[in-house]
Amino acid sequence: MPKVTFHPDEVTVEVERSVTLQAAAKAAGVELASICGGDGICGRCRLIIKNGNIDAAPTTLLNRHEVQRGYVLACQTKVLGDVEVEVPPETRAEEGQILIDIDAQRFRALYQEEKVSFRHEPLVQKLYLELTPPSLQDNLGDEQRLYREIRRRREIPIMQTGLKVLQALPKLARQHQWRVTATLGWRGGTVEILQIEGGDLSENNYGIAVDIGTSTVVAHLLDLKTGGMMDAEAMYNSQRAYGEEVTRRILYAERGGLEQLQKTVVNDVNNLITALVARNKIAQHDCWAVLCAGNTTMMHLLLGLGPASIRRDPYVSSSTAPPPVRAAEVGIQINPRGLLYCLPAIGGWVGGDVTAGILATGLYESDTTVMLIDVGTNGEIVIGHKDWMVACSASAGPAFEGSGVKCGMKASRGAIERVQIAADGHLIYKTVGNAKPKGICGSGLIDLVAGLFEAGLVDRSGRLLPEASPRIRTHDGLSEFVVVPAQRTGTGKEIVITQADIENLLRAKAAIYAGALILMKSLALDFDDIDRVFLAGGFGNYLDREKAITIGMIPDLPLEKTRFVGNTSVIGAKLTLLSQEALEKSYEIAKNVTYYDLISFPHYYEEFLAAKFLPHTEIERFPSVQERLNAQGVKALTPSPSPVLTDGRGGLKAG
Amino acid sequence: MPKVTFHPDEVTVEVERSVTLQAAAKAAGVELASICGGDGICGRCRLIIKNGNIDAAPTTLLNRHEVQRGYVLACQTKVLGDVEVEVPPETRAEEGQILIDIDAQRFRALYQEEKVSFRHEPLVQKLYLELTPPSLQDNLGDEQRLYREIRRRREIPIMQTGLKVLQALPKLARQHQWRVTATLGWRGGTVEILQIEGGDLSENNYGIAVDIGTSTVVAHLLDLKTGGMMDAEAMYNSQRAYGEEVTRRILYAERGGLEQLQKTVVNDVNNLITALVARNKIAQHDCWAVLCAGNTTMMHLLLGLGPASIRRDPYVSSSTAPPPVRAAEVGIQINPRGLLYCLPAIGGWVGGDVTAGILATGLYESDTTVMLIDVGTNGEIVIGHKDWMVACSASAGPAFEGSGVKCGMKASRGAIERVQIAADGHLIYKTVGNAKPKGICGSGLIDLVAGLFEAGLVDRSGRLLPEASPRIRTHDGLSEFVVVPAQRTGTGKEIVITQADIENLLRAKAAIYAGALILMKSLALDFDDIDRVFLAGGFGNYLDREKAITIGMIPDLPLEKTRFVGNTSVIGAKLTLLSQEALEKSYEIAKNVTYYDLISFPHYYEEFLAAKFLPHTEIERFPSVQERLNAQGVKALTPSPSPVLTDGRGGLKAG
Repeated sequence: MPKVTFHPDEVTVEVERSVTLQAAAKAAGVELASICGGDGICGRCRLIIKNGNIDAAPTTLLNRHEVQRGYVLACQTKVLGDVEVEVPPETRAEEGQILIDIDAQRFRALYQEEKVSFRHEPLVQKLYLELTPPSLQDNLGDEQRLYREIRRRREIPIMQTGLKVLQALPKLARQHQWRVTATLGWRGGTVEILQIEGGDLSENNYGIAVDIGTSTVVAHLLDLKTGGMMDAEAMYNSQRAYGEEVTRRILYAERGGLEQLQKTVVNDVNNLITALVARNKIAQHDCWAVLCAGNTTMMHLLLGLGPASIRRDPYVSSSTAPPPVRAAEVGIQINPRGLLYCLPAIGGWVGGDVTAGILATGLYESDTTVMLIDVGTNGEIVIGHKDWMVACSASAGPAFEGSGVKCGMKASRGAIERVQIAADGHLIYKTVGNAKPKGICGSGLIDLVAGLFEAGLVDRSGRLLPEASPRIRTHDGLSEFVVVPAQRTGTGKEIVITQADIENLLRAKAAIYAGALILMKSLALDFDDIDRVFLAGGFGNYLDREKAITIGMIPDLPLEKTRFVGNTSVIGAKLTLLSQEALEKSYEIAKNVTYYDLISFPHYYEEFLAAKFLPHTEIERFPSVQERLNAQGVKALTPSPSPVLTDGRGGLKAG
Repeated sequence: MPKVTFHPDEVTVEVERSVTLQAAAKAAGVELASICGGDGICGRCRLIIKNGNIDAAPTTLLNRHEVQRGYVLACQTKVLGDVEVEVPPETRAEEGQILIDIDAQRFRALYQEEKVSFRHEPLVQKLYLELTPPSLQDNLGDEQRLYREIRRRREIPIMQTGLKVLQALPKLARQHQWRVTATLGWRGGTVEILQIEGGDLSENNYGIAVDIGTSTVVAHLLDLKTGGMMDAEAMYNSQRAYGEEVTRRILYAERGGLEQLQKTVVNDVNNLITALVARNKIAQHDCWAVLCAGNTTMMHLLLGLGPASIRRDPYVSSSTAPPPVRAAEVGIQINPRGLLYCLPAIGGWVGGDVTAGILATGLYESDTTVMLIDVGTNGEIVIGHKDWMVACSASAGPAFEGSGVKCGMKASRGAIERVQIAADGHLIYKTVGNAKPKGICGSGLIDLVAGLFEAGLVDRSGRLLPEASPRIRTHDGLSEFVVVPAQRTGTGKEIVITQADIENLLRAKAAIYAGALILMKSLALDFDDIDRVFLAGGFGNYLDREKAITIGMIPDLPLEKTRFVGNTSVIGAKLTLLSQEALEKSYEIAKNVTYYDLISFPHYYEEFLAAKFLPHTEIERFPSVQERLNAQGVKALTPSPSPVLTDGRGGLKAG
């Protein structure tokens, strides 16, 4: 039997011929990173073949250079003889690491399917220029000579140059025979020459697109020259220590904590950048642009802008479209002269992350009516098409992000991301990375509640029915359902879902559904008028749309009209980082969307209460669910009187 | 007899009734500043009447507020009874102080005579804004609200805001009920919001126009709101310690001294600003703009740009039109967010000071052909009218600025500024401030050489003729002419002009004349085609145009065609500081002037040698001089063979 040796672990295992390296690693107890679980689409399980006989399937996830250096994907490589492999540091599975969407793929998919495409004109560009040397006949100053050549290549009405660049130019140009690389940064209608270097250094130009969520910060590294997606990294937003909800952080900022909050999120962004830079062996000073999308408050905290007025009538921000600034000015560690961009917000409670979503899904240029639901700690809903758009925000709370739920967690390794309750009452589940379960992430929670409902283990008000299953028990006076017993988890603690958890989830889904409904009503539209529903959010890699309909989170429309589009905030951030045209479009979008404040709709609270049932008080609004329940022989239980466990604010943001 | 008491000197003198306070001060031994010597036009001899009976002539040089506080001009005020006066610190005559032109007056004169007028739109403006408070219906972000209001008042396509300003805005606007003052700075096609303050603080907005000459730095303080000229101050350029000539300083910079040279001139500018700010009791942080005019090298040294390429074929600069930068970035001490502007240069050897001159004299829009001669350490000549302009630079050397001449000095107190040689051989002279003579300034030197020539004391080659006067003697083997014997000077040392001095002056005037001639020839023009000659420079308050013609420095045109226009560099600097329109015009001018490099004209050196005579080898080129000499019975002495004391470079700049 062939032997496989893993370095630097110095572990050797014997495996059957044709077994994958991933299986060999598992056998050897070497944990490898993986998001897709072996489908060959995430590109995380990279190994380096030192020597030996293997059969590696072709993949687009490794570039030519990497293949030449011996890189393979463990899950796509079969062992044919004795093999020695090296596990590079980036392939180590890390405990607690958040697994991000393969947005690069989704990104391409959107490009193709939705025809969202913009000119490739990154916000920071490096131009290699061969200047004509001066002569008595052509005695333009060095700066003007540089400008002339740039303008031959790009149409730039207003150019700006800092003194440092100007001071460096004369010597540099002459030392390099008038061959220089100019780094040009787009600054809202003007272009700044950020740097001049000698020779052709236009290759190395990187940017980072960041989605700063209330709970999670996701960063994607892009090659600005080619537009290629290089890598991604995510982590929890460390500001959570100052409050899970947006309003708590605004209060903290108002009480003198603004600087602390800014430092905290800047530190998160820096940590992500450091990881990306190190892993991809690029120089930090070759990173020239950071583009952030996030809700309005997150952008304020990033820039150190006081967010106090966002939570007070009339809920205005310091700036809906903050200008590009030098990244170093807020402490972000890229090239000291590199730029930081923030996507423009629509209003105080509908931020640049939603603008990004509208851009990424192509909603703004759709001929038919589209609904975009972006589920995060707040749920934002946009309805519209190319002629009009309206948006609102509903405070869902962080339940779908795995917070405020007893065994909830982010979509990281060991999180239960899919659940099915089998006919015999047994649970079938899948975890992220196929690891031992540690908790349940957003998509798993949706599956679980839908499953409990379809299996008749909860009634329509979400109440657990103890008589229906031995897994339902009472603990500290509260009902709970045992999802995974202690002996089968990765933590040694059992995984449960409590009555309070279910209430939280119902509140969250009700806030979103009611928001969508109010928006529809105010437009005198019916759900049937909606041609497509885009469901966006950082749930993980997967979301069962049917289950989302089952619990009444999204309207009951044919599945083919509904699509899970992943983290559109970071997708939009990438689009704009790679295209001035896209960024300009985002400004236009942000201006053109009408912002509805749910607080000014008196019926919102009523609708919210009505939506707190499974799938809804009026089940006829969800005919497909009704049909399925009937087919499965589950009687649509009459709701027991609402326990009204809400906080009395009806999911509205704190005013 | 009335008594006059001077405070804080505590000196009392008795004077005749109707005597001026100036005369009383003189009698009391109290030295007062004065440029005009008692003509009531310089406004420097300001005193404060504490009590007593006086008769003060009306003057425009004191404003209403000052008159109310008791200010008078000493030379325009007669004593009618016992008087107590206070001598304010600014009125003290200082040793070594450079006396500047009353450019404010010349400035007005130009405005009226030449119709050089631009819209009043200072480069930095303060706008008081009353913003509409936000509401649910009008929920624009704070920044966008501010922009909207500014755009209601000003047409600004592109606005930029720094993070600091943005961070301050929300709190400030709310604390001051949305009434704020925005400081707007023009930055080449865009406008930056430099500062936001609460309430109406639009009153206090000052700027400084600076002429950075190779030898002298002159600063004028302006009220940017009203456009009023407030005060002026001048000093030697301390860079002189690193070389009198431009080329020497370029060499020093090339050898690692750039930073030192920058610090030196920045320190000079700061000293001038400090003096102006202190004397006018304004706050340094209310100074928002500094606009500098100077030759190309001076601007490079100010900005820390390497000037090496200026002195090498093809003589190009790092930047002919440096962008506005934050003044603090080069160390200039105004408001830390205030801006520094430099006037655009025409070429490596024709700088922004000449652009300023073209602007200030209105040459660029003249219907008739104008020649502008700007005499400094380099002499620049511009010929043209509204359809075309050409310019060149001739290295005159600093002789006319009083350097490189044994007893030469700047036009400061005690400098002989006018000289006449009487029929009996006695000298009549006038010093700046009517003080005891200490040396001779540019205008005095021109008078002196012209006088020596007309009196037959030098021949046409400039050689002193010992037999012609007992004042001519030999010292260390070199002839010299005694101007003032030791016992009558302010220093106890005699004042002389040496043969070498005369050679230096002839070289300087020849360089200028030859430059003008070459320019004319290359245009196929004759001097008769010139309709006006503007003679500019920091000679002092006075220049005898006839004497300048006598020595052959400027072409022999009718006096009414010739005008001394003073320091047009600082006048142009003021015009542009007060008007974006003027600054934009200066960019246009700098681009439109064709730069002729004298080095590329093989006949320049010949013309230079021919011009080294008095007034010229071909005296028929100066018919008015010939006529005057004939009338005075001075025979036009045949030149002796040229002693050729030149340095062999023919006054060309060092290549």
